[in-house]
Order: sequence, then C-alpha cells, then structure tokens
Amino acid sequence: MNPSQGEIFNGGVTTPKGFTAATAAAGIRSNRDDLALLVSESPAIAAGMFTTNRIQAAPVRYCRDILSRAAPVRAIIVNSGNANACTGAAGMRDTKRMAAETAAALDCNADAVLVCSTGTIGVPLPINKISDAIPGMPARLSQAGGDAAARAIMTTDTREKHVAVTFPVNGVPVTIGGMVKGAGMIEPCMATLLAFITTDAAITPTALQSALQQAVDASFNRVTVDGDQSTNDTVLFLANGQAGNTPQLVPEAPGWDMFTDKLTAVCRRLAYAVVADGEGATKVVEVTVRGAVDAADAAKAARAVARSLLVKTSWTGADPNWGRVMAALGVSGAVFSEDRIAIAYDDLTAVHNGCATDIPFATLRKVIEKPAFRLTIDLGGGIGEYMMWSCDCTEEYVRINAAYMT
Amino acid sequence: MNPSQGEIFNGGVTTPKGFTAATAAAGIRSNRDDLALLVSESPAIAAGMFTTNRIQAAPVRYCRDILSRAAPVRAIIVNSGNANACTGAAGMRDTKRMAAETAAALDCNADAVLVCSTGTIGVPLPINKISDAIPGMPARLSQAGGDAAARAIMTTDTREKHVAVTFPVNGVPVTIGGMVKGAGMIEPCMATLLAFITTDAAITPTALQSALQQAVDASFNRVTVDGDQSTNDTVLFLANGQAGNTPQLVPEAPGWDMFTDKLTAVCRRLAYAVVADGEGATKVVEVTVRGAVDAADAAKAARAVARSLLVKTSWTGADPNWGRVMAALGVSGAVFSEDRIAIAYDDLTAVHNGCATDIPFATLRKVIEKPAFRLTIDLGGGIGEYMMWSCDCTEEYVRINAAYMT
Repeated sequence: MNPSQGEIFNGGVTTPKGFTAATAAAGIRSNRDDLALLVSESPAIAAGMFTTNRIQAAPVRYCRDILSRAAPVRAIIVNSGNANACTGAAGMRDTKRMAAETAAALDCNADAVLVCSTGTIGVPLPINKISDAIPGMPARLSQAGGDAAARAIMTTDTREKHVAVTFPVNGVPVTIGGMVKGAGMIEPCMATLLAFITTDAAITPTALQSALQQAVDASFNRVTVDGDQSTNDTVLFLANGQAGNTPQLVPEAPGWDMFTDKLTAVCRRLAYAVVADGEGATKVVEVTVRGAVDAADAAKAARAVARSLLVKTSWTGADPNWGRVMAALGVSGAVFSEDRIAIAYDDLTAVHNGCATDIPFATLRKVIEKPAFRLTIDLGGGIGEYMMWSCDCTEEYVRINAAYMT
Repeated sequence: MNPSQGEIFNGGVTTPKGFTAATAAAGIRSNRDDLALLVSESPAIAAGMFTTNRIQAAPVRYCRDILSRAAPVRAIIVNSGNANACTGAAGMRDTKRMAAETAAALDCNADAVLVCSTGTIGVPLPINKISDAIPGMPARLSQAGGDAAARAIMTTDTREKHVAVTFPVNGVPVTIGGMVKGAGMIEPCMATLLAFITTDAAITPTALQSALQQAVDASFNRVTVDGDQSTNDTVLFLANGQAGNTPQLVPEAPGWDMFTDKLTAVCRRLAYAVVADGEGATKVVEVTVRGAVDAADAAKAARAVARSLLVKTSWTGADPNWGRVMAALGVSGAVFSEDRIAIAYDDLTAVHNGCATDIPFATLRKVIEKPAFRLTIDLGGGIGEYMMWSCDCTEEYVRINAAYMT
C-alpha cells in the first residue's frame, strides 16, 4: 500500500535541472529556519490548486491572481509559523510586500514571485522580520538547499517530506521533484497542505495544469488526518523546460502517460508521507470502499469512515471494533443494504453479510496493531470504488492541538 | 446557559403518577445493573424518535414497528453493554424475545413492550442471561426504582442523568420526568442517545408525537460530542393520563404551551447533561451562530464549528485560537463574507470584521478556562440563528475510545 516505487528517490524540488533553494531564520519561529526560497534560474510556467475553504489566506488569493495572468514564474517564497489568514487588508499588503522584496532581491518582476504562508491563523504577519531576511537569501541559493527548504516549511511535522523521480521522455531524461508540509488540518476537497512540485520537463501551460489536477485528485485529495480543512492549502507546480525534451509535453502525445504516471507517483508518495506524519499518528490505514453504486457513493462512504473519530480511536487501541465502521457507513449518505456489507482488515474478513464472521478478535487485533494496514469495505451493490489514506487519532494528537498556539 | 429552571427538580421517569421501575444485573456487564424495566401501571400512549443512521439496531426497528401500530404501551425493557446492532436475523429474534418475556412477566401483550439496547455493536446479544433476569424484575418494581434505572442504562456515562418537573394544566398538577444515557457517539440529526420521558398528562397520541418532535429539535438535536451518530439512538415518550387533566392536551388548546415548554425544558436539561458528561469532556461550550442568511445556514455553520476536532482541542488547551473557528466556518457550506464576521467568547469580542480585536489572548483565555462558556459567531449577513452545545475533546476521550471494546 505504501506507494513506493523503485525509481522514486530521496531528492526534492531542487533535483530537476535549474532549480535552487535557500532558507533563512527570520524569527517568526524561534531557533529554526522559517523562510524558504525556491527559484528557477530560467522562467518557468506554473500551475496551482488551492483550498476550497470559503475563507482563504491572503497568499492563496494572491497566488490565484498571479496564476490567472499566466506570466512566467521565477520564484516561490514560503514562510512557516504564521498563516497570514484572517488578517484583513494588511495581510494582502504583507503578501505583496513579500513578493516585491523577493523580486527585488532576485532582480525579476514582482508578479514572477509566488507566496505561501503556513502556521497560526489570525495573527498579523511579522513582515518586518521577513523583510529583513529576504535580501540575504539569493546569495545562498543552491541545488543542495532543497533539503533545508523542506525543513523550513514544516509546522507540526516531525520530519521533512520530499522525493524526486527521473525518467525518459522521448529519450530525454526528465525529472520531477516535490516537497510537502502538513500534519494537521488535513482533509480532502482540495489539497490540504503546502506542496511544491518542480520539473525540468518542457510542457505546455494547459498540460501542466491538467497533469496537476489529475495527480492531486489521486493523491492529496485522498488523505485525511483530522477532517479539518485549512485556509492556506496550496499545491504549486513549476516547469522550466530545462530538460530539453521535444516536442513539449501535451495530453495524448508520446511521453504524456509516463509523465502523468510519475507525477502522480510523486504526489502519492508525498500525500502518504503526510498521513504517516499526521499529528500524533502511529499508523496509516488505507480505507477502500468498493461495491458502491458509483464512485461518488464510494467516496462518501470512504470519507465517512476515514474521518470518524470513533473509528480512528479504535485503531489507536488496535480494537477490531467494526461496529463503528458500520455506524459511520450508515451516516455517510451512501446507499447500500446492511445485509450485504463485508469488512476486511488486510485479508481477514471480519464482517460478512453485515454480521460478524467467526474470526476471533485476537486475530483481527494483530492486523490493527501493525503500523499500516488495509481496511476494505465491500458494499455489495455495484462497481463504485474509492480509496483514502487515514491515520489513527491518539492522545498525542490532542496534546499537540491543545497546545499549538499558546 | 445551563438550562436550569427553578421548578425542574431531581426526579426521573418514575416521578409522574403510575410509573415504576426495576433493575437487574443480568451479567452482560460485570458487577453492575445492566437491565432496566420501566412500567406504566395503566396502558400508556407512546411517541418515539429514532436515529437517522441507515444502519439501525434491531430494537430500533422493533420500536418503530410497535409505535406504528399505535397500540397501548405498558413497559420499556432496556439493556446496556450490548447494542444488538449488526446482529442480523438473530438480533431481531432476540429483541422480540426480550419483549415477549417481559410481557409474560408483566402479564400483558408482547406488543405493549418496547425494547432498547445500548453498548457495543456487532456482538450477539447474550439473550439467555437477559432471559434469566427478566422474570424476577416485576416483583421489584417501585417508584423509587427510577434512580437505579437511570444508572443501569449507562455505558461510558460517569453519572446518571434524570430530572422531573411538575406544573399545572388547567388547574391539575401534571408531571414530566426523564432519564437519558449517552456520552459518546453523540451527534445530532435525531437524538443520539437513549432517552426516556414519561408523563401522567392526559394527551392525545398525535399531540404527544408533535410535542416530542418539537422538544427534541430544541434539545437532543442540538448536542455533539464526537460527531459520530449511533445505530441505536432512541427517544421514547410515554403518557398514561393518570394526572386526570381534562380535556386531553391537544395543540393550541389551553395548557398546551405550558406543557411543551416544560417538556422542552426537561429535554434540554437532559441534553445539556449529556454534553457535560461527554466522554472525557471538561467543559461545555454553547455555540451560537447568528447573522446567517437563514436558520439552515446558521445550523450548518454552528455544526461545523461545534464538530471541528481542532476547535474542540483548542478549548481543551484554553487556547483562544479563533482561526480554527474561521477555518471551520469556511468549510461549513454557509454563505457569508469573511470581512463581516464577529466572534465572541462570552462577552469578549475576539474578532471584528473578520480580524482580531485588541483583546489580549490572556484575557480571552480566562473565558475558555471556565467549565462552561459561550462562543458566539455573528456572520453579519441576515437573521438566521442556531445554537448547539458541544464539549472539548481531551486525551481522556481518546483513552476511553481506544479501550472501549477490548
């Protein structure tokens, strides 16, 4: 279930040609880097996907606006420790100032700089600290800076999350790299975290957005940690064409399927890493619903189970309490007959025709004690199927979130 | 906010005339009463409301069926420790056997007995243990048995919850009494617990159901503990007419408003007690949304906030992290403008026009440290209003639910 593939390696956003990164400790958080700058040495095209929360942070609204202009992008500046959300007109002024000062330091246009923020909502951005730190960053840009960038964007994450993959497109090696942060406020309906993907592939802007949407739907939209969706969630994808593949990648053309497969693999690896590093999480559960009347119903059912606090706490205790799964299915809105439901933990069928099988709890419990297992629900009513990754909810989750801000 | 009223006193289901109760330790749970029998000495009319979960326990389906016959009811038999849900055809057989054996012991018709179960889902009901215990119960029926009944129906509840109120209807004293159990799997969209209400009022069957629906909508449908809805939730209301008020209560007639007000007060007191005794809860929060475009939008917004795990854990830490409230509002589906939102903790306005006011966190924190406070959200866009009771989510909640079954 862990979406690892041999060719995916431990690189990141600076692994594709022509990308560099630098970090700084601006003092938004204490004693750690909290500012990351990602730069493409040549102009790149950009695609993005953003939170569907009605309340959107200033940098989210800013990035949407920049992307709508379809101008070349040179850089992304990211701060952690402060979300710059619910900060009114001052918030947007601060975001634009981050962009302008980064542009000045890089000697490019302000609209070639994208801005992301992550952290506490509702606190004014300490823009002067950021402003003081930006001018020194370009001199420190390097291809080796990707690791530090992946660390600088972390909030409650316990480890940096980044990968890369290289593969041939029409005989030319192309690389995709990515990094992600996100450990709480993780819930689908658009990527719910900050993720940055880079590639040196030559690709058209329309194709870039299309590939990103497809990959995000199969990855970042399939994870839930706590059912809370953020105001800042953003996935940005930059392509600078330095790999030199010709012709440019477009849908249906040679190399397209390979490219979207690898992009999806990168995004899935990163999404899985987010759940595995979910706040307080000790295990990852792949929840699959099949046999639904259609995929939409399967998604409803999978989400209800993957989000249920009672289901998630039962995993914490390695408790084969499938009754809670049934209760969650029952309020999901999905259509099914109770007496056709089957539920399996890995390959052990705990429920058949809506009732317990004779597999002893102690046997089921051994599966749920593992750090990763599959929970498969067959509704027995059609061919609709949907998969999601969730994690357990532990006392540590509560401890982290009872203490986050103050 | 605590819906206490002077005339509500510490009685219960056996306070109205002609109701008695008895309990037994059938051995479903160890070392405690786990069976409660509530009897009306004369035939009573009955009304009920049930879970809207698609998966419904056998006793829920059984009670629905009995109530649809509109035959007189004499008794309710309730077991804790086992939900008799997801137990297939055997589950329904066991429920009917509980009814039949209770009827035999009381010498009444089987369809005059209602049955409720609460506890673990998916485990066969230990019907023989119950069957052994029932015959001895009628001899122990007493008016004093109400307290023990309120304890016997408890699962993870830490205390029994029961109240009563007496008031005049057309000059005749009428009493309403109630008891409730429920501490987890608490979420609205129909009462999410077991609640039993009795009255000696003379009232028509249609009026009884109408009064119950109105009261439940203002009470049990306004509480959330963990957003999980059970397969067994049931509210039953029996009226035996022994108060002798004439004419019978019907909507719009003299005494009706007083009766529904008192019934609602009883249900609200019980619902509040459920949240206050929520699994692991240390505080109750009254979440009110006003200024929504309509009541339905206000309800959406209030539910999203009251259910959000991040909001609930912020209360645990007495953290005035209103950004999480904003994020929850943003995904609620309610329509509003971010820049018109106001948020107050008790009487302290933390957010005005969508941004922080200058009230220091330390001051807000003092409110959130209290065992009960109000969180009021004004969307500034209409006259829609809705109120809900929620509680904090603590490490103890996780501890309880990671250990419930095994």
